[in-house]
Amino acid sequence: MVRLAFLGPHATFTEQALRSLPESRGAELVPCAGSPAVLAAVRSGEVDAGCVPIENSVEGAVGAVLDGLVGSPPLVIVREALVAVRFAVMVRAGTATADIRRVGSHPHAVAQTRGWLAAHLPDAEVLLTTSTAEAAAQVARGDLDAAVAAPLAAEQHGLVVAVDDVADNPGAVTRFVLVAPPGPPPAPTGHDRTTFAATTRNQPGSLLGLLTELAVRGIDLTRIESRPIKDRHAEYWFHIDCTGHVADPAMGEALAALHRRCDEVRFLGSFPRAGTGVPPTGTTDPAAPLGAATGTAFAAAQAWLDALRAGSVA
Amino acid sequence: MVRLAFLGPHATFTEQALRSLPESRGAELVPCAGSPAVLAAVRSGEVDAGCVPIENSVEGAVGAVLDGLVGSPPLVIVREALVAVRFAVMVRAGTATADIRRVGSHPHAVAQTRGWLAAHLPDAEVLLTTSTAEAAAQVARGDLDAAVAAPLAAEQHGLVVAVDDVADNPGAVTRFVLVAPPGPPPAPTGHDRTTFAATTRNQPGSLLGLLTELAVRGIDLTRIESRPIKDRHAEYWFHIDCTGHVADPAMGEALAALHRRCDEVRFLGSFPRAGTGVPPTGTTDPAAPLGAATGTAFAAAQAWLDALRAGSVA
Amino acid sequence: MVRLAFLGPHATFTEQALRSLPESRGAELVPCAGSPAVLAAVRSGEVDAGCVPIENSVEGAVGAVLDGLVGSPPLVIVREALVAVRFAVMVRAGTATADIRRVGSHPHAVAQTRGWLAAHLPDAEVLLTTSTAEAAAQVARGDLDAAVAAPLAAEQHGLVVAVDDVADNPGAVTRFVLVAPPGPPPAPTGHDRTTFAATTRNQPGSLLGLLTELAVRGIDLTRIESRPIKDRHAEYWFHIDCTGHVADPAMGEALAALHRRCDEVRFLGSFPRAGTGVPPTGTTDPAAPLGAATGTAFAAAQAWLDALRAGSVA
Amino acid sequence: MVRLAFLGPHATFTEQALRSLPESRGAELVPCAGSPAVLAAVRSGEVDAGCVPIENSVEGAVGAVLDGLVGSPPLVIVREALVAVRFAVMVRAGTATADIRRVGSHPHAVAQTRGWLAAHLPDAEVLLTTSTAEAAAQVARGDLDAAVAAPLAAEQHGLVVAVDDVADNPGAVTRFVLVAPPGPPPAPTGHDRTTFAATTRNQPGSLLGLLTELAVRGIDLTRIESRPIKDRHAEYWFHIDCTGHVADPAMGEALAALHRRCDEVRFLGSFPRAGTGVPPTGTTDPAAPLGAATGTAFAAAQAWLDALRAGSVA
Repeated sequence: MVRLAFLGPHATFTEQALRSLPESRGAELVPCAGSPAVLAAVRSGEVDAGCVPIENSVEGAVGAVLDGLVGSPPLVIVREALVAVRFAVMVRAGTATADIRRVGSHPHAVAQTRGWLAAHLPDAEVLLTTSTAEAAAQVARGDLDAAVAAPLAAEQHGLVVAVDDVADNPGAVTRFVLVAPPGPPPAPTGHDRTTFAATTRNQPGSLLGLLTELAVRGIDLTRIESRPIKDRHAEYWFHIDCTGHVADPAMGEALAALHRRCDEVRFLGSFPRAGTGVPPTGTTDPAAPLGAATGTAFAAAQAWLDALRAGSVA
Repeated sequence: MVRLAFLGPHATFTEQALRSLPESRGAELVPCAGSPAVLAAVRSGEVDAGCVPIENSVEGAVGAVLDGLVGSPPLVIVREALVAVRFAVMVRAGTATADIRRVGSHPHAVAQTRGWLAAHLPDAEVLLTTSTAEAAAQVARGDLDAAVAAPLAAEQHGLVVAVDDVADNPGAVTRFVLVAPPGPPPAPTGHDRTTFAATTRNQPGSLLGLLTELAVRGIDLTRIESRPIKDRHAEYWFHIDCTGHVADPAMGEALAALHRRCDEVRFLGSFPRAGTGVPPTGTTDPAAPLGAATGTAFAAAQAWLDALRAGSVA
Repeated sequence: MVRLAFLGPHATFTEQALRSLPESRGAELVPCAGSPAVLAAVRSGEVDAGCVPIENSVEGAVGAVLDGLVGSPPLVIVREALVAVRFAVMVRAGTATADIRRVGSHPHAVAQTRGWLAAHLPDAEVLLTTSTAEAAAQVARGDLDAAVAAPLAAEQHGLVVAVDDVADNPGAVTRFVLVAPPGPPPAPTGHDRTTFAATTRNQPGSLLGLLTELAVRGIDLTRIESRPIKDRHAEYWFHIDCTGHVADPAMGEALAALHRRCDEVRFLGSFPRAGTGVPPTGTTDPAAPLGAATGTAFAAAQAWLDALRAGSVA
Repeated sequence: MVRLAFLGPHATFTEQALRSLPESRGAELVPCAGSPAVLAAVRSGEVDAGCVPIENSVEGAVGAVLDGLVGSPPLVIVREALVAVRFAVMVRAGTATADIRRVGSHPHAVAQTRGWLAAHLPDAEVLLTTSTAEAAAQVARGDLDAAVAAPLAAEQHGLVVAVDDVADNPGAVTRFVLVAPPGPPPAPTGHDRTTFAATTRNQPGSLLGLLTELAVRGIDLTRIESRPIKDRHAEYWFHIDCTGHVADPAMGEALAALHRRCDEVRFLGSFPRAGTGVPPTGTTDPAAPLGAATGTAFAAAQAWLDALRAGSVA
C-alpha cells in the first residue's frame, strides 16, 4: 500500500491539502511531527511521498521546508495543492460561545484571527498550541473550551463548529507540495510549474544574472526567496518557482544555462500548477515579442539555425 | 521607563537578542505571544519598540514578521542583532541524562537537533512545545524531564545545562530586528543596512526592473523574499535588504527610482549592520568601475552635471 | 557678422540643410573641403559654428564627423536639420537627355540612383566626383553633360533640371547638425535630443551597463555607433543619441551615472529634435510604468525621499 | 578563373587588403566604382566574391557597405583583413618636395594628414579626388604634382614615395571584408567572428533585450552600429559583430534566440578573425563564471538536462 507522510498531527491544513490530491486515495496517511520529519521519512524510504506546506503557511514551517528540500539525497516535487485557509471556532457539543474561557490555537492562526477573538471572545484566555489540530485535540480531551482550527479538525475530533470563517482577512491561501524521490517528472500539461534552488559565487550581479537567464527565455517567476546556507558563511540558496515544465524547450534551455552559470542548481520538480492560484509576476523579458517562448518559436528558430550552419542563409 | 516588547515567553532566543542591544539596558522587557503581537504592541503605543526574528528563525515566525511589517500604521527597523543559535539540553538539578524519558522543544529546534537526539536519547519521547522557552518552563514545572532550548532558558527557569551545543549543524545564526514607529533614522555608520518592501503591477519584467535599479547604483542585495499580498489575488510584496543608508546618495537615488517605478514602496529602515553576519551577495552591477557608488563619485558626477547645464563642457 | 562653415562646396545637401536653419539668416556661409575642415574652423574660432552631416549622408562623411566631434577642444551640437534627399539630373540649358554622354556625381549618390541611370541613361559614362555639387560645377564648365545632385546645385550653377526625383528608393533623409563651441544649451522644448560619446574600460558588460543606465531612467536611444579610438588599441567610443534634454531630471541623472561609470563621457549637446524624423527605438525600460521618467514623477519621488530622510515615513 | 571585385580603382587600400588574402592568389581582381558596385557584382554572379571596407575606412564607404549587406539576395562575409593605414606622399621621379604646388587625395585621407600637409606643404593647393588611387593616377598623368595615397599606388602608377608615414595619428587600421553568396561557413578556428544585422519592432527595450541575448551566453560584442532602414520610417538595422562562430553552441543558441525575438535577423557570416585587431569589448555577462560559454560547459549542461528530463536528478 502506498504510504504518504504529512505535517501532522491529523486534521491540520496539511492533511486537508493531502486529501485533496488524487495520490491520497487508497493510501495510508502518516502524520509526522514537523516538516523536517516528513522529508526525512521520504528520504529514508519509510513512505513513498510526503506533503508539506511551502508558501504562506498557517503553521509556519516554510523556511524549514525550503532548507530541507536542498538536503541529500535529492527530492523532487511531483504535485501541488492550494488550500483556502478557513478558520473555524470549534467546541464540544453543548458548549455555548458564552462559556468559552480558554481557547487554543497555533500562534500563526491566533495572529490571523486576533481581531475576531478580541471582538467576540474578549474575556477568553488564548493558549498557544503546537498546531491547530493539537488545539482541537485538547478541546476533545477537555483541556480547552474551544479551538481555532481547520474545519477538518472538528470532524476528526468529534467537535462542532460554533462559528465558521473567523479569519480577519478572509481569502488567504496556502500552497502545499507532495515530494518524492527523483523519477521521471509528471507529463507536461501546458499549465505547469518548475521549482529549483540555485547558489552562485558570492559576487556582484549573480542574482541579476540568474534572473536574466529566465527572463530572456520568457520564463515567468512566481516566487523567490533567499535562504542562508546553513554551514557556509554568507552564502545563499535562491529558491525559485517559475511557470513551465523541464520538458519545454524554453525551460530546458534556461536550466542548462543556470547549470553553466551557478555553483549548484538543484532541480526540485516540474508538476501541474494548482488552480489559477499564483499567476506569474516576475521576470519575463518584456521586450520580447509575444510567443517568442513557445515551443513553436523554438522549433522554428532551431530549423533556421540548422539551415545557417549548413550554408543556406535565408 | 522605556518599554520593549519581544517574541516571548521569557528566555527565547529573541529575548537573548534583545538583551544584546544597548536599548535594552534599563528598559522594561515585555514578552508577547507571537511576533504579530509584538508588532501590534508597538503600533498601539503600548511599548516603545519591539524585537522580532526576521531571518532563519529557530522559532519560525519570519513570514509573519514580514507580513506584519507592511501593515499600517508604518513601522521602521532601527537596529538589528545576530544571535548564534546554540542549543543546550537542560534538566532539573539532579536529573541524570539516563533518566530523561520525555524531552520537549519547539518543532524547529527539534528539527535542528534531530541527529543528536537520535544518537544520545534514542528512547526518549520527543514532545513539541510552542517555544523552546515553554519547554524549559515545563521542565521546571516537572511536566517534562528535559528541554532543548537557549542557555538563557536554563538560567531563567533554574535549570542546569546537561549537555551544551547539541545542534546538528553548529554555526547557525538568526537575525533579529528592533522595530519602532517612524522617526529620523539612526545616523549612517558607513556599515549600514536598508530594508524595504515593494510591490509592482503584475507585469513582465517587474522584478528584474526593480533589482536593476539597485544594481546600476552599486547597491548590494543581501536578502530577497516574495510574499503574496494577503487580500489581493496574485500580487506580491518583494521584501529586500541591501547595504547602505537612506542618507547615502546612491541609496537615496535608488529609493527615489523605486518610488517612480513601483506601485508602492515601504521604507522599513536604515540601521547599522550587525557583525559581519550576512555580507552582500546580490545585484551590484558587475560592469561598473569600483568606487562608482561612493559618495565621492556621486558628488563629482553632480558637479560635472551642474557644469554641463551651465554650458561649461569639459 | 556671424560666419557659419559647412561641408562644401556650395550647393551640397549640407548647404541646403544649413539654409533651412534660422541661424543661417543674415550669416556668411563658408564652404569647407570636408567635414574635418568644418570642425577645425569652428575650433579655431574662424567661424562661429559649422554644419556637417551626422547620419546616413549622401556624401559619406559621417564616420569622420563622429571621430571629429570627440576631438579637442570640445564642441557641442546646438541644432539639427533633416533634409529629404532628392536627386535631380541637371544639364546646361539646351541639352537633351538623349545627348547625355558623360554624367557625374559623388559615389554615394551614384549608388542611390544606379537603377535609374541604368534604365534611362544606359549608354552614358558615369564619372565620380568628390561631391554632388562638384559634378554640377563640372557640367557648368562643360566638362560633363549632366550631374546627379541636389536641386539647389542647379540653381547655383545656372543649370536646368532635366529629370527630378531619380533616387531608386525615394524617401531617404539625411540628418545634419550645427556645432559650436560650448555654451549654455538651447532651452528645453519638450521635444529634444541629447548626444554624447562615452568610452569604458574594455571589460565584459560595459556596453550593456551603459545602456541600462539610460533604460532605467526612461531614456530612449535613437542612434548608437561604436567607433574605434584612433590611437588606443581596441578601445571604442560609443556614440549615442537619445531623447530628452540635459536640463531634464531623468537625463541629468543618467548623464551623472555615466560620469561615474565610464572612463570618459563627452557631452555633445542638447537641442530641439527636427521634425518627427527619427523617433525613439531603443532602450527605455519596458517594465517601468508609463510616466515614471517625467519631471513630475522625479519631483514626487524626491519629495518622498526627503520625507524619509527626515523621518516621516508614509 | 576566380574573379574577385574590389572597391577601386586599382591601388586603393581595398586592393591592398584583398591582395593580403589567400583567395586573391591567381584570381582576377576587378575594380568597381564604389562599394555598392562591388556588392552588385557579387549578387549578379559577375564575380565570385568582393572586397569592401567595413570599419573606419579612409575612403568613406562604410555606411553604404552596411546598407548594402542587408539587401537581397543574401550575401555573407567569408574572410576579413586588417590593413594598417599608411599614407605616403608620392610624386613623379624627379619632383622635389619644394616643387609641389598641387597635391591631391580623397577627402578622408586629407583629413588624416591635415597636420602634416600644413607643416610641410603650407603653400601647396590641396585638391580632392574620388579616391587616394585616383590622386596618384592624376600625378602620373601630370595633372597633380603629388598625391597622398597608399604606398601600393606609387608602385602601380610608377611614382616614387617622397615622404612615407605622413598620417597625423599613425596606427590607424581599417577592416575589410570579402563577401560572397551564401554557402557553408569557413570551418571554426577557435578565433572567429560572427556578423549579423537585426531589426526589432520599434518598442521600448528592444536593443537592450537583443544585447542581453548575447551577454547571457557569453558572446562578446566588438562593433555595433544602428542604420536607419531606407524605406521604413523610423526603423533601424542594428549591425553587430561579435566573437565566436555559428557552429559554436553558445553562438548558435544566441542566434536562435534572436530569431525568436527580432522581426528579422540577417546572418552575415562566421569567419576567422584577422590579427588581434579588434578584441572584444562589449556585452558578455560579467556575472557569469569563467568558461560558462565554452563548448565543454554547454555539453555538460546538456547532459545534466537530459538526465533531469529522464528522471535522474543529481
